[in-house]
Amino acid sequence: SILAAVTDLLNPRRPLAGRHAIVTSGPTQEPIDPVRYIANRSSGRQGHAIAAALAGLGARVTLVSGPVAQPDPPHVEVVRVETADAMLDAVRRALPADIAVFAAAVADWRVEQASVHKLKKTPGAAPPALVLAPNPDILATIAAGTPRPRLVVGFAAETDDVEANAAAKRVRKGADWIVANDVSPATGIMGGAENAVSIVSADGIEEWPRLPKDEVARRLARRIAAALA
Amino acid sequence: SILAAVTDLLNPRRPLAGRHAIVTSGPTQEPIDPVRYIANRSSGRQGHAIAAALAGLGARVTLVSGPVAQPDPPHVEVVRVETADAMLDAVRRALPADIAVFAAAVADWRVEQASVHKLKKTPGAAPPALVLAPNPDILATIAAGTPRPRLVVGFAAETDDVEANAAAKRVRKGADWIVANDVSPATGIMGGAENAVSIVSADGIEEWPRLPKDEVARRLARRIAAALA
Repeated sequence: SILAAVTDLLNPRRPLAGRHAIVTSGPTQEPIDPVRYIANRSSGRQGHAIAAALAGLGARVTLVSGPVAQPDPPHVEVVRVETADAMLDAVRRALPADIAVFAAAVADWRVEQASVHKLKKTPGAAPPALVLAPNPDILATIAAGTPRPRLVVGFAAETDDVEANAAAKRVRKGADWIVANDVSPATGIMGGAENAVSIVSADGIEEWPRLPKDEVARRLARRIAAALA
Repeated sequence: SILAAVTDLLNPRRPLAGRHAIVTSGPTQEPIDPVRYIANRSSGRQGHAIAAALAGLGARVTLVSGPVAQPDPPHVEVVRVETADAMLDAVRRALPADIAVFAAAVADWRVEQASVHKLKKTPGAAPPALVLAPNPDILATIAAGTPRPRLVVGFAAETDDVEANAAAKRVRKGADWIVANDVSPATGIMGGAENAVSIVSADGIEEWPRLPKDEVARRLARRIAAALA
């Protein structure tokens, strides 16, 4: 009802009421043949938690997710995809949006000619060479596209020079913010329950302490609500 | 107790009491760099169901599993691994065994030089070429090794000439049986709840109807118990 909508908009606990957020999460899988694929490591925990946190602040949320074992967050529309191409299509179909958070670990490359038949291992023969082709850059495409979400947030999973790489990525991709994290195996962040991120914006770099991924998500959602207020 | 052990051995509903079975399940993941990997599609459903079914017939079961979202089957010791090398190690450490069922979808190849640092996507530059190296052949290695399990069962996931490929594989690998199935995308078997398999042995080929994966597992466990009786 109109009354409920107005109440929602005035409710300080639902500051994102009336906003549409698109969140991507999980890995993408790029087929080599019917049984093999290339993928990025990603549990989808952080992306799914962000979708849940944005919904918790009242946003209508479309979550575009690669293959993950996470349960669907409540009150979120989930679109399941496999490849980077399909993820970009699903994000485009979900536009327009006020907020886009690209937390998925999209494979940078796909196999140029995926085989319809299972590649056979021939005893004694050399392994096949995989010719890779670049995948679409979802963050850069949406940040440069029309209609552009008002706030475009990318992620940078790095193992070296985390903040410098993230700051360069923010400019190169046309994102408003980059959430940067160190995914070196020693950190245990990949697949773990905690995350230690820095928020890179035009204003500089804000380092957050190591926190549960749910708490990182809630902080990020509150910061997004403040930016759009 | 000795009494319980004797009762177990004489119990017609626990015909595998006193036997040790090793089962592999799920995919293996072969790292490209800290965030990327090559894998085979495999939900682990069929392998986990086989482990549960063998335990249900009284066997002591060691389940060596790649990364899957399946819950651990009850009364089964689960060893988690990531790569084919680690899976072979875990199987070797679990020997001796009476029964070995290799249901995992082991990656045939790994990346020869996995990078410790995340490969960077350089704008304008060609994608990296991945040089692949053959992985150890777990089925052939265990079937030819010492101590050899009395019954060695392999799987053949094929998209073409399923039974002919499986029969050739049985001989080439030194397996006693091959469980062959057609994983063409149109079958919906990959990741699905049902399976349609053929059992290839020295006696010939036995085609089973399309059945829930749990029921395929129970039939296979009963057939294994009969073979060892």
